[in-house]
Amino acid sequence: MIRDLTDDEARAALLCKWGEVATDVLPAWVAEMDYALAPPITRALTEAVAAGLTGYPRLGVGGPLGRAYAGFAERQFGHVVDPEQVLPVVDVTAGVRLALDAVGARGPMVMPVPGYAPQLDIAAITGRERLDLVVDPDAARAELDLDLLERHFANGARSLLLTQPHNPWGRAFTRAELEGVRDVVLRHGALVVSDEIHAPLVLPGAEHVPYLAVEGTAGHTVAVVAASKAFNIAGLKCAQLVTADPSLAERLRSVPMARNDSWSSLGVAASVAAYDHGDAWLAALRVRLGDQRALLGELLATHLPEARMRPLEATYLAWLDLRPYGHDDPAAVALERGKVRLSPGHHYHPGLSGHLRLNLATSPERLTEIVRRLARAVTATP
Amino acid sequence: MIRDLTDDEARAALLCKWGEVATDVLPAWVAEMDYALAPPITRALTEAVAAGLTGYPRLGVGGPLGRAYAGFAERQFGHVVDPEQVLPVVDVTAGVRLALDAVGARGPMVMPVPGYAPQLDIAAITGRERLDLVVDPDAARAELDLDLLERHFANGARSLLLTQPHNPWGRAFTRAELEGVRDVVLRHGALVVSDEIHAPLVLPGAEHVPYLAVEGTAGHTVAVVAASKAFNIAGLKCAQLVTADPSLAERLRSVPMARNDSWSSLGVAASVAAYDHGDAWLAALRVRLGDQRALLGELLATHLPEARMRPLEATYLAWLDLRPYGHDDPAAVALERGKVRLSPGHHYHPGLSGHLRLNLATSPERLTEIVRRLARAVTATP
Repeated sequence: MIRDLTDDEARAALLCKWGEVATDVLPAWVAEMDYALAPPITRALTEAVAAGLTGYPRLGVGGPLGRAYAGFAERQFGHVVDPEQVLPVVDVTAGVRLALDAVGARGPMVMPVPGYAPQLDIAAITGRERLDLVVDPDAARAELDLDLLERHFANGARSLLLTQPHNPWGRAFTRAELEGVRDVVLRHGALVVSDEIHAPLVLPGAEHVPYLAVEGTAGHTVAVVAASKAFNIAGLKCAQLVTADPSLAERLRSVPMARNDSWSSLGVAASVAAYDHGDAWLAALRVRLGDQRALLGELLATHLPEARMRPLEATYLAWLDLRPYGHDDPAAVALERGKVRLSPGHHYHPGLSGHLRLNLATSPERLTEIVRRLARAVTATP
Repeated sequence: MIRDLTDDEARAALLCKWGEVATDVLPAWVAEMDYALAPPITRALTEAVAAGLTGYPRLGVGGPLGRAYAGFAERQFGHVVDPEQVLPVVDVTAGVRLALDAVGARGPMVMPVPGYAPQLDIAAITGRERLDLVVDPDAARAELDLDLLERHFANGARSLLLTQPHNPWGRAFTRAELEGVRDVVLRHGALVVSDEIHAPLVLPGAEHVPYLAVEGTAGHTVAVVAASKAFNIAGLKCAQLVTADPSLAERLRSVPMARNDSWSSLGVAASVAAYDHGDAWLAALRVRLGDQRALLGELLATHLPEARMRPLEATYLAWLDLRPYGHDDPAAVALERGKVRLSPGHHYHPGLSGHLRLNLATSPERLTEIVRRLARAVTATP
């Protein structure tokens, strides 16, 4: 059910991941998958283009998109969502920004670090100081440091940008962990913006708990969700804000149009198709990604035995600690010597050396070649 | 070459214009056209969907989109644009916001009023006071009041949001008028953000002069352009910022990704097709819109002889002064009594009564019915 794109197909479909590298470079950087689209999405887009669906999308909350996401959330996560509290936005990062602008109090924002690179700028863009919830690279497990979170709030922070499942930690937080976050947040009356773009990409053995499915979170939470990451449609531009509190929902949907009217009609069509008809493809995808995860473990053991990777519970993005190989920026070394493009660790954690993020959502053959090239590059004697 | 959509086709294609009204209501409100897409756009989108072009778009300036817009600007307006100074953005209003955020000095922003409704909020959203350049509803011609512009700048304004051609004035400003603006702006060292989304929709008898084609504007101007309005693809989400000054261009393209990475891959594909292969269709469209304009004149003379409409030089949006008929909000009256949806004038000019905006980009039969319904509604004895 999961069909690998050929190199030529991938270059035509993934203009950023494959188009922004030289043809002799293997791309394993930006978070896109080298797989053909789920057939229900292709069908929906084909029909939409035939119908000339290029005008402004339907306005406002609810509608087919709200109903489709609510159905998906219930089937996939056992989570009940009010379709009338599903508000379209153009993409997840714009949704995070909107939530902070529209309902976030002033004052510093806490963010887990390493964190999704473009979102490291969100605090500054929204006029806030960023306070980092850092994971020690030597920690056995990547965990939210609740003591530090408590101190950040005590020092004036008013919001937390939670990324869960976490990119690039690869964590799916447990209900107990999320309850811990909730308790700290409630003590300080803060806002949580929960970026759950990777929610459908929890791998075999783990589970996604929507933060809004944790009791007592409705009054302080805006979740940001999308079909874009799991179904490879980030270029179509449609994400959703989800709330479980009528007054938060009202504040979000009553912002001026110029703050939030940029989502795309075809993005809506593709998202509705993904949510309504994508379950079987998604199940097959998770199996494939689980297989790729296992393969990556074997390849690392063989070719990069000193690399460290914490257990990957979610996403197709592996966070690798390559410090034993002695390079400040192993991704740069890999690109130059190995002709493989990976994402530098310091993009996610400013100042951190020796780390990189590897995208395993490709064919087994390409993943094998990616690790071989990386290994040759970082172990070569200059 | 211009094919009218049937009602059913229009309802499937234009989810906002046709979908947000009851089925017995004729829509003549939001700025979309009831015509089938230009064939080159349908072809490009069909090919893009078949190729699975749903990933992130190409990053940065120039590229096929920059080259396509530069070619279009040279053929259509005789205006030379550097493709490397064409930066994609998600849509025009987001582009205006980005330009103000990235290169606009603090301080009030001047805006011609009546003005495009969502952009009335742009000043506040970007943390500025809005100073209005108002057209007296009784003025013979809708003109930029340069004396008032001078006073606004003298009083501290630092930027001007120029809409040209103007919606809803229907004006295509002359080179002499634009030189007048330039002179005032240069005296005060202000920024011009020139929203030229309607540039390709200058009607027979008028001409579009890009503000950047006026000598001496390069250092203070960000133009915002798009294929979206002329080619009916606003739902696909791609517009462009254009500059003619390397340092302005550099400041715009170096903003953090989280400020500007939301344009859509399919929007780029459609825009490139429109710019590269849309000239013939566009020429036919302008003839059709010119015919619709003439028909509207006849219909008004027959059914609403006391209505006043200044000469429509550009756009397919007629600004009607219906004060002689005695309704504060004639659009509300038309919707309730006449089952025709028009855009209330006070959305464009807060506090103004008796005006509305009528979208004439439909079939002659529908336009006839729109005016008949409007006339019956506003002339009926309650």
